[in-house]
Amino acid sequence: MKKYTAEFLGTFWLVLGGCGSAVLSAAFPEVGIGLLGVSLAFGLTVLTIAYSLGPISGAHLNPAVSVGLWLGGRFSSKDLVPYIIAQVLGGVVAALLLYTIVTGNGSAIGDFAANGYGEHSPGKYSMTTALVTEFVMTFMFLIIILGATGPKASAGFAGLAIGLALTLIHLISIPVTNTSVNPARSISQAIFVGGWAMEQLWLFIAAPIAGAAVAGIVYKTLLEQD
Amino acid sequence: MKKYTAEFLGTFWLVLGGCGSAVLSAAFPEVGIGLLGVSLAFGLTVLTIAYSLGPISGAHLNPAVSVGLWLGGRFSSKDLVPYIIAQVLGGVVAALLLYTIVTGNGSAIGDFAANGYGEHSPGKYSMTTALVTEFVMTFMFLIIILGATGPKASAGFAGLAIGLALTLIHLISIPVTNTSVNPARSISQAIFVGGWAMEQLWLFIAAPIAGAAVAGIVYKTLLEQD
Amino acid sequence: MKKYTAEFLGTFWLVLGGCGSAVLSAAFPEVGIGLLGVSLAFGLTVLTIAYSLGPISGAHLNPAVSVGLWLGGRFSSKDLVPYIIAQVLGGVVAALLLYTIVTGNGSAIGDFAANGYGEHSPGKYSMTTALVTEFVMTFMFLIIILGATGPKASAGFAGLAIGLALTLIHLISIPVTNTSVNPARSISQAIFVGGWAMEQLWLFIAAPIAGAAVAGIVYKTLLEQD
Amino acid sequence: MKKYTAEFLGTFWLVLGGCGSAVLSAAFPEVGIGLLGVSLAFGLTVLTIAYSLGPISGAHLNPAVSVGLWLGGRFSSKDLVPYIIAQVLGGVVAALLLYTIVTGNGSAIGDFAANGYGEHSPGKYSMTTALVTEFVMTFMFLIIILGATGPKASAGFAGLAIGLALTLIHLISIPVTNTSVNPARSISQAIFVGGWAMEQLWLFIAAPIAGAAVAGIVYKTLLEQD
Repeated sequence: MKKYTAEFLGTFWLVLGGCGSAVLSAAFPEVGIGLLGVSLAFGLTVLTIAYSLGPISGAHLNPAVSVGLWLGGRFSSKDLVPYIIAQVLGGVVAALLLYTIVTGNGSAIGDFAANGYGEHSPGKYSMTTALVTEFVMTFMFLIIILGATGPKASAGFAGLAIGLALTLIHLISIPVTNTSVNPARSISQAIFVGGWAMEQLWLFIAAPIAGAAVAGIVYKTLLEQD
Repeated sequence: MKKYTAEFLGTFWLVLGGCGSAVLSAAFPEVGIGLLGVSLAFGLTVLTIAYSLGPISGAHLNPAVSVGLWLGGRFSSKDLVPYIIAQVLGGVVAALLLYTIVTGNGSAIGDFAANGYGEHSPGKYSMTTALVTEFVMTFMFLIIILGATGPKASAGFAGLAIGLALTLIHLISIPVTNTSVNPARSISQAIFVGGWAMEQLWLFIAAPIAGAAVAGIVYKTLLEQD
Repeated sequence: MKKYTAEFLGTFWLVLGGCGSAVLSAAFPEVGIGLLGVSLAFGLTVLTIAYSLGPISGAHLNPAVSVGLWLGGRFSSKDLVPYIIAQVLGGVVAALLLYTIVTGNGSAIGDFAANGYGEHSPGKYSMTTALVTEFVMTFMFLIIILGATGPKASAGFAGLAIGLALTLIHLISIPVTNTSVNPARSISQAIFVGGWAMEQLWLFIAAPIAGAAVAGIVYKTLLEQD
Repeated sequence: MKKYTAEFLGTFWLVLGGCGSAVLSAAFPEVGIGLLGVSLAFGLTVLTIAYSLGPISGAHLNPAVSVGLWLGGRFSSKDLVPYIIAQVLGGVVAALLLYTIVTGNGSAIGDFAANGYGEHSPGKYSMTTALVTEFVMTFMFLIIILGATGPKASAGFAGLAIGLALTLIHLISIPVTNTSVNPARSISQAIFVGGWAMEQLWLFIAAPIAGAAVAGIVYKTLLEQD
């Protein structure tokens, strides 16, 4: 149970920290943290959990990561489903808490940092562009994770590299899709926004998982060292 | 005495650096550092002290951290009170120095980065929202501290993870309460602002200590590894 | 082949992440990441690849780096040409993908983060200034790389130092040339912009390679430790 | 000679990167890096040199640091004068290069990131405030340096802690004095600005050296571990 508790708490923190900073602080008048601050916040949720709860569960915090690690031969199939359940639950509880905080000054939740394409992309990018972007970003995220946690990697630096990889991914792609690369993070926000967010949710489950799956296979085939 | 001196100097630096950057630099015309810069500054005070004075005192710099570590079984009860005294004194001396710097161009101190709720929340969030936010943020701060300093954690990376956790917490919650998670930091600024800041101070003592205490017990019970 | 694949993928990520963040996010309305975010993104592409694919190929991701390491006696001449080919191919594929993303909301690619001088320098700096700046920046980049990967350097920290060196170089010199210090990054963007970018491309091949070459020789002669 | 060359090159990089980012990028229209970017740049000059040339010279890059380490018992008196000469020379050569770059689009150098107080403080802070601020900032800088390089500190993390300490110091104090804590950095810029900058230069030599000297003695007396 310790590892499921760690995945629950860790994904709770990812959604609360990442989406929370976006909704509460990004556009705060005059001194808001902007997309740079939100990108940093998402990365720091992963970095801080990797160094604290990573020794317990591996700090996946993301169903696509669990799938990619499983196909890359780094994660056992018996833990796959319970990890994903813990991650989604952690995200949903975070979104519920964030809902109560955001509305605590009488504000509406707005788009609640939900992921979207077309009319609901921050920069109005098309569905195809969103699909390609989420696929490639998650593909590279998993290549970095698989490499940084491999047997020849510098011990201890994986949490830094993986956390800052998520920061980088957000620096690039928030304008396209608000950046998912994580179905748990997309599900939790879509549930509270409903409507268009639920209709577009399929893309933010399918594209990250496909990108991660391909990365797991590519890494194992072309890059894994003996 | 070395460890009390280290806690005094370290908390002095936390308040001078965190609140100092907020008051002096956040809203500097055109090139101000904003809430992102203030969040970074708070985190870097902890990071820099963790790697320099951490070997002496553990670099708590925060009564809530000392309480959470004590309940988590990582800190001896005999040092609890002297640590808290050293931390509060360090914060107050920093606030006094900051007072003389801020007024050194003829400015008033304004809200002096004091913590507040309701009318005195930067984003006008309610007392209940502030209470929940400070509780949860300090709870997660302690979970990260307890994990990152545990026996299976990557040696050396705790200072990075804990410092950047404080940055992350500020990225999320400055709009709600100006972010405390640290009674010493709240006390020092409230003393100089007086009035509303002293009246609201109870929340920034009670909520961080409660969140830290619950985290200490939860970590020990559910996450501690053999 | 693993190391060439790693250089291809790594340089793909450098161009997609660095130029992608510049084109997509830098000037996003109200919450754009600015030159600070772009600088961070370029550095994080190198940092994340250094810790993941570095154990495979060394993570050069840049023909100037390969040349400088070769002249500094750290890289064998037989790999020099295949590395450069893999790097340029990786950059061009990234630029192609970025082209399809950027135009995915109907936008034109604009200057596509291409490097330029004179009229095409962001701050209208002259050709001579651009030449001197690119030379010095790449010179110092290679001094840092050679030192941080030397036998007496702290094991593991090279990826951090080198990635953040690239961030620093961008913080200084984006206004002068949009910052190259990397012929692969310059070639990939110039191909898609054509015209002036192709005409000015020589400078962004010659100056970084010259700066790196001189650094390799200087380091080996004056700084290398026994 | 290797260590003097390292101090020369390292201080060259500190002034070129720190003052260069300030003069070229801080106020670039719409996407400028602001005081946050400049603070990051100063810190990254130290971080990158600490991990690359640190094994050669210790990466002081600052006469106040050399004095503080000497009084703290960590640096031999025979190297003190040659280090300071190399540092000042490196700074002056950087300022000369920066002068040619800045004027390369026809601009004047303006205040050239020189340090000042009173009318020449960015926020118009008084001479006394500047004196106190520079003293305290350098004092804490040396406390962090002495602690992070002590025998019980985490091996390898000193460069990170010290570099980011300089970032933090700038986040706090640029509005007060443009932040010196380093006589070499102040001398190099004052020479090119002349007039008021030369008249006020005494403060940016005296206060950092006094703060560093007191820190060296305080650390050795009150904090040094057996």
